[in-house]
Amino acid sequence: MIRFASLLGLIILLPLPALADPMTAIELRDQALSDPTAYQILESLTSEIGPRPAGSPAQMRARDWAVAKMKSLGFTNVHVEPFAKRAWLRDTESADIIAPVPQKLAILGLGGSVSTPAAGITAEVVVLRSLAELKTAPANAFTGKIVLVNQPMTRTQDEIGYATAVAARGAASDAARRGAVAYLTRSISTSTARAPHTGGFGYAADAPKIPAGALGVPDADMIEHLAATGPVRIHLNLQSHVVDATAWTISGDVLGSKTPDQVVVVGGHIDSWDPGTGAIDDGAGVAISAAAAHLIDKLPRHPARTIRVVFWGSEETGGSGTAYLEAHRNELDKIVLAGESDLGSDNVYLLELPKGAVNDPQLAALPTILAPLKIMVGKTPALDGGADVEAINKAGVPVLALHQDASRYFDYHHSADDTLAIVDPQQLRQNVAAWAATLLMIADSDVDFRATAK
Amino acid sequence: MIRFASLLGLIILLPLPALADPMTAIELRDQALSDPTAYQILESLTSEIGPRPAGSPAQMRARDWAVAKMKSLGFTNVHVEPFAKRAWLRDTESADIIAPVPQKLAILGLGGSVSTPAAGITAEVVVLRSLAELKTAPANAFTGKIVLVNQPMTRTQDEIGYATAVAARGAASDAARRGAVAYLTRSISTSTARAPHTGGFGYAADAPKIPAGALGVPDADMIEHLAATGPVRIHLNLQSHVVDATAWTISGDVLGSKTPDQVVVVGGHIDSWDPGTGAIDDGAGVAISAAAAHLIDKLPRHPARTIRVVFWGSEETGGSGTAYLEAHRNELDKIVLAGESDLGSDNVYLLELPKGAVNDPQLAALPTILAPLKIMVGKTPALDGGADVEAINKAGVPVLALHQDASRYFDYHHSADDTLAIVDPQQLRQNVAAWAATLLMIADSDVDFRATAK
Repeated sequence: MIRFASLLGLIILLPLPALADPMTAIELRDQALSDPTAYQILESLTSEIGPRPAGSPAQMRARDWAVAKMKSLGFTNVHVEPFAKRAWLRDTESADIIAPVPQKLAILGLGGSVSTPAAGITAEVVVLRSLAELKTAPANAFTGKIVLVNQPMTRTQDEIGYATAVAARGAASDAARRGAVAYLTRSISTSTARAPHTGGFGYAADAPKIPAGALGVPDADMIEHLAATGPVRIHLNLQSHVVDATAWTISGDVLGSKTPDQVVVVGGHIDSWDPGTGAIDDGAGVAISAAAAHLIDKLPRHPARTIRVVFWGSEETGGSGTAYLEAHRNELDKIVLAGESDLGSDNVYLLELPKGAVNDPQLAALPTILAPLKIMVGKTPALDGGADVEAINKAGVPVLALHQDASRYFDYHHSADDTLAIVDPQQLRQNVAAWAATLLMIADSDVDFRATAK
Repeated sequence: MIRFASLLGLIILLPLPALADPMTAIELRDQALSDPTAYQILESLTSEIGPRPAGSPAQMRARDWAVAKMKSLGFTNVHVEPFAKRAWLRDTESADIIAPVPQKLAILGLGGSVSTPAAGITAEVVVLRSLAELKTAPANAFTGKIVLVNQPMTRTQDEIGYATAVAARGAASDAARRGAVAYLTRSISTSTARAPHTGGFGYAADAPKIPAGALGVPDADMIEHLAATGPVRIHLNLQSHVVDATAWTISGDVLGSKTPDQVVVVGGHIDSWDPGTGAIDDGAGVAISAAAAHLIDKLPRHPARTIRVVFWGSEETGGSGTAYLEAHRNELDKIVLAGESDLGSDNVYLLELPKGAVNDPQLAALPTILAPLKIMVGKTPALDGGADVEAINKAGVPVLALHQDASRYFDYHHSADDTLAIVDPQQLRQNVAAWAATLLMIADSDVDFRATAK
């Protein structure tokens, strides 16, 4: 009987060969819900460093801050990986309606824009109410004009609102092909705030490079109203410069206790846009990933696999994802899973894993662990782990996604209003709880995410 | 029988000697709820004029706009009343943290502030978490320092949140008496937006005049966090100038049909602060009062009394209320009632009349007329009809108040975010409905508001 019972026990345990322990994950989750670490990290980063575009002196300070922060949190193997970065940096900018009435406008140049001549550009503005109006206009339709696309953005919980609206930010070449001398977009924003929302874009090779900027939402509407009453002339002055700079990936580990060469990569990006202090984009991702790993680090026993916290150094103007791929191309097979927190600090509502992984018995407890956080475990696989893991994902690294509620995110994103003041501390902690519990279950398993899909 | 019935009818009608007709008021109310006039006025003013501080060239344009608008709306006796105005106007402004880390700050000088020296002021900042900390500090407590009062504001439906918080805006002299070289206040704001909120203040006669500005809410919190870690030094440069200028009251009438020499004065102020476009402060009051009077003007029969729409010309930095008193001192007895709409464009929730008036039978239908708009008729008398009618009120003119929900108002007030984008068109129309119905009942009555209190 004894022998039979043992055998039975062995059979029951067989699907759980590693150490993943749902009770520990549940305790970790609840501990995270009252843990102040993430908020403290975020307050420190936004106050003591502030805005930190790649290529700026502030990003150098952010690098040193990150190394010190990772060390003080107890991570091992803390190090910096430099990479070359051609960086676009904002100088003075202004925009003014000069006719029919003088009015100052709230403007931000778009990342990557060429400068106007030093004296600026003065031209009549043509207001289009949708990007489609621009794309379908004939050649020379806007010769000598400033084109403004004033297409509003739809507020959505997921990223579809942004994915749809953001195309207007990249349409400078469409305007240039039709003769425009400058391109303006209504801010890609769901807010009514006057602060413009910047963002990066690229020029098409076959079009003249014209200056491009984002107007505040109320300003774009004001111009549309004025343009309906008669010609509107704008004076635009956008100055910027480009430098060959260095950016940095900062990395630190919670070493695995059993299979430390198997690595789960998580993090956020430490660079930010310049008008705000980069609290939700993406100080939050930095803080959430570091705080979650820190909670796991303090457990009596580390999970089997290594958890690697990565602060990517150039997400906003691109480059840190590919730099990470290049730096780790020969060891990608050691990265069992990767993910990035980069959609603010509001509640996570959905976990998506690589295809098939949700059916692995070692992860069967995840719905039980996450349900009290109001997080669903998706049947659909994660298609996108974040901009900085896209390159390694394409090179074969599986990704997970903890989807955050983005309803408020685009009120603030890329604008001066992205500050600590908009962060809800309780929702920030919910994110830490979600990542900590999920990471623990994954890192303390031996699930092969490359194999689950087969 | 016939004779008796007639007599009975006469008795029932006796308490209603004037023409006030609740059914007409109800029709007018419902018409207002779908009338676009107020929004059109507001869109025109904010787009075609924009910000319009007293003493600025824009206010001159606003005066001409107002005259043209009143005439196009069909008002009679449209005219301009000039008055002398010593105007404070903003020039260049900046604020930067220079230690422990460089960070740009969002700042607006407070109206009436002296300028810093041309090169600015650099000093350590002392952060106080309440105004009481400043008021109770000993002499010389802040010698050579920049004082920042970072007291948050409570969000309230009525004005008590603002009335409590705004004292911090006026405390420059309290800081100066204690040796401070400059004074900063956290914006008097319920928002998390970075845009600072300006506002006027005055210096005490017995203290040095030091420069005074408002920081954005997130910036004030950031400084508080940094100051907790060590000394914070700020460079502050606030430039402004003062000019002897002219401001204007613009006035137009809907002439009374029976007792036109009895006048009900209503309006808003046409001047605004400079960072936004003055949509809720107080383009809305201008638009609401004009649209309400316009709806009454279009009735087949005008009410008995004249309705006078007044756009006051210098509320923000003071002077238009007293100018109005001086210009009309000899005819105050003709003003039967006065009121101003100056708390934004969100729903009215409470009507208050002069003491005793609520009991007058001619106004007995007001609760019935206003209840569908979710407006209560208060048992308590109106204590305040608005800043521009305060002077005539003190000189004996009774006032009414249509209290607006101020819950959102101080998110935007006096900041760059005060634009048309934050105006809810349906709530704006509810205001027009409230004013139109109330004005009709009052103007078509012969209620003596000076007598009702006795």
